[in-house]
Amino acid sequence: MNPTHQPPDQPPDQPPDQPPDQTGPADPAGPVPRTIDWAGDHLVAIDQTLLPDELALVPLRTVDDVIDALRRLVVRGAPAIGVAGGLGVALAAVVARRDGHDDDWVRAEAARVRAARPTAVNLAWGVDRVLAHLDSGVDTVVSVAVDMLDEDVATNRALAVRGAEHVRSLVPDPRRVRVLTHCNAGGLACVEWGTALGIVRALHEDGDLLEVFADETRPLLQGARLTAWELSRMGVPHRVVVDGAGATVIARGLVDVVIVGADRIAADGDVANKIGTYPLALAAARAGIPFVVAAPESTLDPHTASGADILIEARDPDEVLVWRGQRLAPPESSALNLAFDVTPADLVTALVTEARVVRLSAGERLTD
Amino acid sequence: MNPTHQPPDQPPDQPPDQPPDQTGPADPAGPVPRTIDWAGDHLVAIDQTLLPDELALVPLRTVDDVIDALRRLVVRGAPAIGVAGGLGVALAAVVARRDGHDDDWVRAEAARVRAARPTAVNLAWGVDRVLAHLDSGVDTVVSVAVDMLDEDVATNRALAVRGAEHVRSLVPDPRRVRVLTHCNAGGLACVEWGTALGIVRALHEDGDLLEVFADETRPLLQGARLTAWELSRMGVPHRVVVDGAGATVIARGLVDVVIVGADRIAADGDVANKIGTYPLALAAARAGIPFVVAAPESTLDPHTASGADILIEARDPDEVLVWRGQRLAPPESSALNLAFDVTPADLVTALVTEARVVRLSAGERLTD
Repeated sequence: MNPTHQPPDQPPDQPPDQPPDQTGPADPAGPVPRTIDWAGDHLVAIDQTLLPDELALVPLRTVDDVIDALRRLVVRGAPAIGVAGGLGVALAAVVARRDGHDDDWVRAEAARVRAARPTAVNLAWGVDRVLAHLDSGVDTVVSVAVDMLDEDVATNRALAVRGAEHVRSLVPDPRRVRVLTHCNAGGLACVEWGTALGIVRALHEDGDLLEVFADETRPLLQGARLTAWELSRMGVPHRVVVDGAGATVIARGLVDVVIVGADRIAADGDVANKIGTYPLALAAARAGIPFVVAAPESTLDPHTASGADILIEARDPDEVLVWRGQRLAPPESSALNLAFDVTPADLVTALVTEARVVRLSAGERLTD
Repeated sequence: MNPTHQPPDQPPDQPPDQPPDQTGPADPAGPVPRTIDWAGDHLVAIDQTLLPDELALVPLRTVDDVIDALRRLVVRGAPAIGVAGGLGVALAAVVARRDGHDDDWVRAEAARVRAARPTAVNLAWGVDRVLAHLDSGVDTVVSVAVDMLDEDVATNRALAVRGAEHVRSLVPDPRRVRVLTHCNAGGLACVEWGTALGIVRALHEDGDLLEVFADETRPLLQGARLTAWELSRMGVPHRVVVDGAGATVIARGLVDVVIVGADRIAADGDVANKIGTYPLALAAARAGIPFVVAAPESTLDPHTASGADILIEARDPDEVLVWRGQRLAPPESSALNLAFDVTPADLVTALVTEARVVRLSAGERLTD
């Protein structure tokens, strides 16, 4: 991986083969580029590890670049990593044509991309979907992968409109909705628009949103860094809280609804999402407010029976113990860094996808 | 306030009136000095904002020093700030004698100490207890305040022994107890020994402790910084987790019991403690494991009817938004920084004090 981000007052260090509109610092006041995109023979992605300090695009020119970007959370969020998986297969196919590798090589590269992160089912979904077209040739593979970009945006828009409508039906005052969210399920977690934050955006554009509370979401602070950044750009009034405060924001009646994304939804409706989601669901149930999960149909995993069967990624303990090079805990201390938790289906008031609303806590099921 | 902490390889910058054994860096391998102590005519305290990087004592020579130390959490933890409140009154009395102020001046100074932090009832308890002896003269005031130091240690030891015994009665394997704790309710939160961590220490000394999970406890990381440091010095196997992971540590069966401290316990048994405690109680109830609160009787507040009546301190938003001078969130974002939450009594399996065990979730009451 070869990041080209620069301070805004310096010209980007552009390699000659790289068009100036595809990498380097983006206009901080301009529209947010797509989280991930295809640039003819490689991927470009917003480097989310640099936000909110810097909005910069990086090129991903090799499968190793893509895997590194997934593992380091340069690209993160279940829908976005699904699309990245598909584009990663397209990249492998393009590289194979250029360098003379066969289809088995592409399949092996695709398997490596598929294994880059274990919890979000979207990654496997994106890889498999594009890989299924390998026999039709490289151009078809690329075309199928690129189509996933527009499809993701359309899916999220449909989900957001449906979700906003459903949320209004759940809260006391549908013209003044107050939302708590966790992690980042916004445009940055997708190609554009977002799932949970897509609903927030739709409510905001309808003039029905009063305030958002954003859990900071340790250890990597996707809430404080990314969700707060998206909300700022949208002009949405918001306050950041530490993760331990989310339950109290709910208990004190400061929000009407909790809306979160998902990384994998098991066949029984159990939801894997960023660590810290489950206690919010417990608090919402105790307070009697709705807990809404927003995710595309591609996040549903019929092959995983229940939450207990979902593999939870354990990441580097130093993500917890060290912040920007400074150790927080004593040198002898270790950490357990589980990246996701599982919220049982009975705590989920509604699952909203682009196609439907499933009232899981009321006993509705994902499949008949 | 005049901190004299120094890197260990430099001699402390000792003012001439300050004995070398009372301030400056402590031996990092030696016994931990008392969190707070009386030095003849002023207080000395471990500056907890510097841990775990540096174990340093600072002198508190004026009431303003004491108030500043309380507000900046140089001294923190309900029992410790209770003792600090009592010693603060002693300091005011000593200063009044030296400078020719009358008892009304001492009372006014005491009122300022009492108001330094709102949530922990121990602060008012400590101030009032010492102030009640003002008519008996300065020497008596100082003596009563200094007696609180030893009393705090004795109280915590009694609580720890009782708590360890009770915890063993609650868990599946009393010889291999696995504990989750939040924030720091250790020796650093008291004069020595600790409440929740006092129980942990007693279990450890009895050979009955297997492992402790410590919530990092944002925003100020008392878990990662202070609890992990105490556990390291005790030689207790432990892992730090982000606050959002505590509920999952419970749900996945990684601990047998949650043990926390308290800052104020209302007459109905509702418990105010560090923000992030309440979701642990929800998770423990859902998982069917015991949730134990360890606090001295001085934390019980019969004058506060229920948790809804407890004033929750809202601290500077920058504690959430900035870490060691680096802003985490976008410049436009604000934060709500509630320092405490309230756990309803029905979620508290047992309240352990130095005098008794009260099974609150079973309907036992604090008073008849």
